[in-house]
Amino acid sequence: MSNDAPQLFVALLHFPVYNKAREIVATSLTTLNLHDLARLTATYGTSGCYVVTPLQRQRELAHQMIAHWTQGYGATYNPTRAEALQDMQVVEHLEAVEQDIVRRCGGAPRLIATDARRFPQCISYTALRQIIWQRRAAFLLLLGTGWGLAEEVMTRCEYILAPIYGLTPYNHLPVRVAAGIMLDRLLGHAEAGACASPLRPCAEKGTE
Amino acid sequence: MSNDAPQLFVALLHFPVYNKAREIVATSLTTLNLHDLARLTATYGTSGCYVVTPLQRQRELAHQMIAHWTQGYGATYNPTRAEALQDMQVVEHLEAVEQDIVRRCGGAPRLIATDARRFPQCISYTALRQIIWQRRAAFLLLLGTGWGLAEEVMTRCEYILAPIYGLTPYNHLPVRVAAGIMLDRLLGHAEAGACASPLRPCAEKGTE
Repeated sequence: MSNDAPQLFVALLHFPVYNKAREIVATSLTTLNLHDLARLTATYGTSGCYVVTPLQRQRELAHQMIAHWTQGYGATYNPTRAEALQDMQVVEHLEAVEQDIVRRCGGAPRLIATDARRFPQCISYTALRQIIWQRRAAFLLLLGTGWGLAEEVMTRCEYILAPIYGLTPYNHLPVRVAAGIMLDRLLGHAEAGACASPLRPCAEKGTE
Repeated sequence: MSNDAPQLFVALLHFPVYNKAREIVATSLTTLNLHDLARLTATYGTSGCYVVTPLQRQRELAHQMIAHWTQGYGATYNPTRAEALQDMQVVEHLEAVEQDIVRRCGGAPRLIATDARRFPQCISYTALRQIIWQRRAAFLLLLGTGWGLAEEVMTRCEYILAPIYGLTPYNHLPVRVAAGIMLDRLLGHAEAGACASPLRPCAEKGTE
């Protein structure tokens, strides 16, 4: 990845988020989301990827899953999964993520909230893209689970990204799919990967 | 959705695709992929969404899952899931998808292959986007599972989309996440959803 690329970190928050009844809860870890997020952040070369849950047993589960795919049989069976998961960190709360980024970058990250709802102060993808590519600062993209990030997190954020709309009013994307679209809009180039010259396909690429 | 939007159909193929040993196999249905694809195609307003498997028991499983979420308790518990899944069709082979599109649109769809590998004749997202928005024809985007679409499918396609790259050489995205990025690049508008005027958030939006 280029040194000019933004310093964008990503965190998947299982707390504090809302449930269906708008109560603040800790949601369950979905191990598949960890795989998807790891492969996604490896693709876009984010500066770091965190999974946040206050529940110790859930952190242990995440560590077990990561160890399975980064060590021993799992790493041999699917090396690209090992490559993606090796940089994922599992932490107790958002403050621990921020402290880790301060340690790595020398400054606190600017927080970016994501939500399926519209807010008065939300920023477009185009505008945020310009900011993160132009400013030499660390940014932390917060992905909520359940029914979205709790207000106490939203109010701490410097930016709230506009909800993702396609061509319809429907906006209920799974967090793993939404995260892909977000990173592509903020960091990606639609032209990347187009073939300038004839290249033979290489054999092993899993898409499942 | 606007009447000017492209006629783009999507099919998730479980056969014929490669396994790790490059043998042609029928992969297992992953019910979560069906949910994700349904919510994604509802977001981007595609003209239709198909799940293709030659295995009768797997088609029954897909029908059971769709019925659970579109009828009775499931539909009440999560109406947005019902809304997304109600248009998903489960069919036996690719030819059945093409026949259904001929029946609905009056002409055979132009096939678009997707793959994580580069091919000499692949087309960029920007170029394909122009084509599908300008030409009044039906297009069918083929998503592979396992280790990708078999050659017998690839050679039938009019277009092969360039593989998705972010900012690194890593390109091993899950098909559900890749599909999101593909539809956003082909149909989406990064500016959509930005707030032109102050709007209050509405309460119920699940992101899980």
